[in-house]
Amino acid sequence: MSQQPGYGEDEFSASAKAKIRQATGCPEADVFLLVGGTQTNATVIDAMLRGYQGVVAVQTGHIAVHEAGAIEFGGHKVLALSGKDGKMQASTLKAFLDDNLRDEARDHMVFPGMVYISFPTEYGTIYSRAELEGLYALCREYGLPLFVDGARLGYGLASPAADVTLEQLARLCDVFYIGGTKVGALCGEAVVFPRGNAPEHFFTTVKQHGALLAKGRLAGVQFDTLFTDGLYLKISHIAIDMAHRLKAIFTRRGIPFHIDSPTNQQFPILTPDQMASLRGKVAFEVWEYLPDGRAVTRFATSWATTQEQLDALEAVI
Amino acid sequence: MSQQPGYGEDEFSASAKAKIRQATGCPEADVFLLVGGTQTNATVIDAMLRGYQGVVAVQTGHIAVHEAGAIEFGGHKVLALSGKDGKMQASTLKAFLDDNLRDEARDHMVFPGMVYISFPTEYGTIYSRAELEGLYALCREYGLPLFVDGARLGYGLASPAADVTLEQLARLCDVFYIGGTKVGALCGEAVVFPRGNAPEHFFTTVKQHGALLAKGRLAGVQFDTLFTDGLYLKISHIAIDMAHRLKAIFTRRGIPFHIDSPTNQQFPILTPDQMASLRGKVAFEVWEYLPDGRAVTRFATSWATTQEQLDALEAVI
Amino acid sequence: MSQQPGYGEDEFSASAKAKIRQATGCPEADVFLLVGGTQTNATVIDAMLRGYQGVVAVQTGHIAVHEAGAIEFGGHKVLALSGKDGKMQASTLKAFLDDNLRDEARDHMVFPGMVYISFPTEYGTIYSRAELEGLYALCREYGLPLFVDGARLGYGLASPAADVTLEQLARLCDVFYIGGTKVGALCGEAVVFPRGNAPEHFFTTVKQHGALLAKGRLAGVQFDTLFTDGLYLKISHIAIDMAHRLKAIFTRRGIPFHIDSPTNQQFPILTPDQMASLRGKVAFEVWEYLPDGRAVTRFATSWATTQEQLDALEAVI
Amino acid sequence: MSQQPGYGEDEFSASAKAKIRQATGCPEADVFLLVGGTQTNATVIDAMLRGYQGVVAVQTGHIAVHEAGAIEFGGHKVLALSGKDGKMQASTLKAFLDDNLRDEARDHMVFPGMVYISFPTEYGTIYSRAELEGLYALCREYGLPLFVDGARLGYGLASPAADVTLEQLARLCDVFYIGGTKVGALCGEAVVFPRGNAPEHFFTTVKQHGALLAKGRLAGVQFDTLFTDGLYLKISHIAIDMAHRLKAIFTRRGIPFHIDSPTNQQFPILTPDQMASLRGKVAFEVWEYLPDGRAVTRFATSWATTQEQLDALEAVI
Repeated sequence: MSQQPGYGEDEFSASAKAKIRQATGCPEADVFLLVGGTQTNATVIDAMLRGYQGVVAVQTGHIAVHEAGAIEFGGHKVLALSGKDGKMQASTLKAFLDDNLRDEARDHMVFPGMVYISFPTEYGTIYSRAELEGLYALCREYGLPLFVDGARLGYGLASPAADVTLEQLARLCDVFYIGGTKVGALCGEAVVFPRGNAPEHFFTTVKQHGALLAKGRLAGVQFDTLFTDGLYLKISHIAIDMAHRLKAIFTRRGIPFHIDSPTNQQFPILTPDQMASLRGKVAFEVWEYLPDGRAVTRFATSWATTQEQLDALEAVI
Repeated sequence: MSQQPGYGEDEFSASAKAKIRQATGCPEADVFLLVGGTQTNATVIDAMLRGYQGVVAVQTGHIAVHEAGAIEFGGHKVLALSGKDGKMQASTLKAFLDDNLRDEARDHMVFPGMVYISFPTEYGTIYSRAELEGLYALCREYGLPLFVDGARLGYGLASPAADVTLEQLARLCDVFYIGGTKVGALCGEAVVFPRGNAPEHFFTTVKQHGALLAKGRLAGVQFDTLFTDGLYLKISHIAIDMAHRLKAIFTRRGIPFHIDSPTNQQFPILTPDQMASLRGKVAFEVWEYLPDGRAVTRFATSWATTQEQLDALEAVI
Repeated sequence: MSQQPGYGEDEFSASAKAKIRQATGCPEADVFLLVGGTQTNATVIDAMLRGYQGVVAVQTGHIAVHEAGAIEFGGHKVLALSGKDGKMQASTLKAFLDDNLRDEARDHMVFPGMVYISFPTEYGTIYSRAELEGLYALCREYGLPLFVDGARLGYGLASPAADVTLEQLARLCDVFYIGGTKVGALCGEAVVFPRGNAPEHFFTTVKQHGALLAKGRLAGVQFDTLFTDGLYLKISHIAIDMAHRLKAIFTRRGIPFHIDSPTNQQFPILTPDQMASLRGKVAFEVWEYLPDGRAVTRFATSWATTQEQLDALEAVI
Repeated sequence: MSQQPGYGEDEFSASAKAKIRQATGCPEADVFLLVGGTQTNATVIDAMLRGYQGVVAVQTGHIAVHEAGAIEFGGHKVLALSGKDGKMQASTLKAFLDDNLRDEARDHMVFPGMVYISFPTEYGTIYSRAELEGLYALCREYGLPLFVDGARLGYGLASPAADVTLEQLARLCDVFYIGGTKVGALCGEAVVFPRGNAPEHFFTTVKQHGALLAKGRLAGVQFDTLFTDGLYLKISHIAIDMAHRLKAIFTRRGIPFHIDSPTNQQFPILTPDQMASLRGKVAFEVWEYLPDGRAVTRFATSWATTQEQLDALEAVI
């Protein structure tokens, strides 16, 4: 007897999708609202590959490390390349594809079937427009769809270092998603096939992956709000501003960074003493231990980060 | 910098789990909060089976029909038995298991690895306590875990026809879930392993299935609320009350039912004319076409169903 | 330093494939030599389906029962229909497909993606040419490839009851295989895509399924021999002749049959006493227990069955 | 009516298994005869892992590169480590396992569930007894089964550089296989669980993977022969002798090697001109292109390699 139909057919979802089509400058786009990042990556990748194909990504890519094997669960190999500062370089990709093409054992190997990158990457870095153009030209040359994981997309677009807009990004790939979970929403990832190029029966693939929201309005309401009056980027700008203040705190303390991240994730290198003094007071993660005992750590700001929190951090470090 | 940890470690989830442990009378229970029903079924079943095993269910079971092959996507066969009014009968299950045991080709066949039932079933019917006891005794005899899909659990427990309580149910199976999505929540299914018997590294299996909520508090808040002051059953009672009024309307109109459902789903048999007059005015689904042109239809009430809606239905039918 | 290249590129395989193209009247056919039946079914089906699709078969089909879940291991559901004497009826298939098309929940269900039949069936029965034409016309109408499991193909074609030739069969489906393992060879199944319609990179799918013979000449030599001077059908005729003598023995003893099989598999219904007297002396299997204590049993003849063996059987029964 | 039972229950298979139990000094061993290497790797690994686990291997491991994604098809990730000359080093493995154990995101990652090595490796190198002891001690310390891919086992054991025997190998791992296909047989790999430690229902897993030979005697006869009078090692010694002669030819011509392989695979580095002069006359493969235009090539000898073939090679190079 529910008056609001389920499974994404509700009016909030319809409104959210219309606004996303407008914001991306893609009136023909197919838009689907899923719940979380891992599920979105697994569903999109599985829908776009044939059984004998794998997805090319950098070794530090989220799908290659932190998704508990969700891509392999779906039957596909992640073909992992060396990256630079978390990014895939066109030259590395081209060398890999050329080597594959001339490999005499090629038919005994997983075929590269698509390319996956993150924007921003797992190290907070972002691709320049020129880099995206280079990667996408290469992908088209080799007949491989390009998929951009935008779980943190807002933070990338809102970074002062960014020279690419949402509209431009949409033209430089075959599918991407606009992360809600990491950017202000309780949950939700908006998958965009910019040119109406969703794989056939993608809805059913979403269902099969357990990624279909029965009450689609849950994601619909959130994306409808995020894409009203530019809230999505406004929220992202706050997080970026806070990240820069955070960066300044570490810099003032003489603490070095593993990488110069222009987005909301920062990777200061801390000593065991510094980590001990922060434990229980500030949320951070150890990203990687260094041979000298120090650790690359990860701090992430968001729209909800306050100056008081930053002051508290500065007080204890 | 988030002060509320993610992935289900937040205080709302902790509170919800504590209340669920209390409500089920299972202080040792492992409780996990997932998002939706198909994903929960696929994750639990995949976690409990070995590769050579399948899950036994009735042919009308949700996993056998309406989950787009999510169980098979995980590599497992649904071993489908004939049911009665949507329910699995102990005698049918026993015959199947005995046949399997003495089958000379048994090692060439999928091994039954667990049993799946729904409470209420996909036809709105519910198991009596005696039926559950019979099934569970049989499962233990044959060494098969029993899994109860409780996507609509509240409507089953709240039915005047029910003679089993939540506490009793928890003792009569090895894992079950308390549906939130269909019973008042925007999303969320609470998986309960009543005796602390969650499969090893279940958290990682949840992650691999794309079923892990980054912001676990989304489900935590909802279950914390639903299990405060008995709201979960109160909501369910409203839906059941409305279902009985709905039933009365069809009965007054002389419309027969496909099945005598004691819960919130009702299955009147409508003529094409009756369906045409309801289309666009009331939400219902065609469940099955009959040879005579009529159709078994499904109407579902919820806590949000109002007397006005019922009046409107009565006016047009 | 091997002079005979591997993986099916050897001259024996090339010769075998050429002879198969000639025998099937399909000069454009793609032919692949695999090892065994289950592996062939799993590989062909997986190669032809998309993730959201399943394969339609009768409930007694080999893939539905006796392949240990190999199809589900590959992620696909077997959509099982009721059959008649082991055969799929066009009317049943049509009803299933029509029901699926008008099902309102269709997008939540596995899509039928291909049709699988066995020739002969698991009950020894065979399709008439008219039946095959009916099924294939239906498949084309609904856009579904038809796959014929020919693990015992020779016995079907050699049966006096058959009114279809190898050439005709090749025109009435999209892919089939010519069983070697069950028909005279030590191993080997020749998959034929009659109109050069093998799925892209099928070789790699074969490899991925572990179905690629490093020393392809093993299968090549055997099929080259089987398709020289009509040996394949000659061998099959011997088995059929022996099956008819076997049938006569049971008939003389007044033993009824479960089904009137015109091929090399016979299904006499035996009492426990009769089974006991045969145990250890004659190879047979219990196919199905009947409520009255008797059992449907299966006896299979082959080219190697001798009159002495039949005499021995007659002596003990 | 067949007098020789199928599916590996025949007397040849029984005899082969008994001889393998004797040759490995493992009277309790479970032995299974499968067909080929990729299928054996995929079946064993899938049988031993739970869904949330992956298999640790070096990047050049056969399962990581040349099996067309067969491991991922089964749902498992290959956790690839850097190797040295194709071998896994205990120090590298230990560092990986320790990093994994202390990784805060560990529960979001694939769990290492077993370790895979090849003997000899894909680069023809072999582990010393001390190296195997070190790896196996580490595996036991971390609770991980060790699996040895012995597709070319004979060539490793027969190498003058080897200081490990078949009996010793069997004590230094949890499962391994004795390759037949690459060592004299037309097909066949004998999987050995040395201490009767086969995973439950391994037969059914073999069937599900399409790896069960209906006529098991095909592999049975071959292994029965190979393990009579030490033929397996005799054959291997011939190949190793020929490999050393092959090595001498390249050395005489001043052609360098990529790696100093003590087994039947040799990896000379050839110029484009040298490759051109060999093409069509000698069987070899390009293994890897070098930046300077030359290529690492692979030549493999076998028991069938003759002095005449070597002379022919020397004549054209």
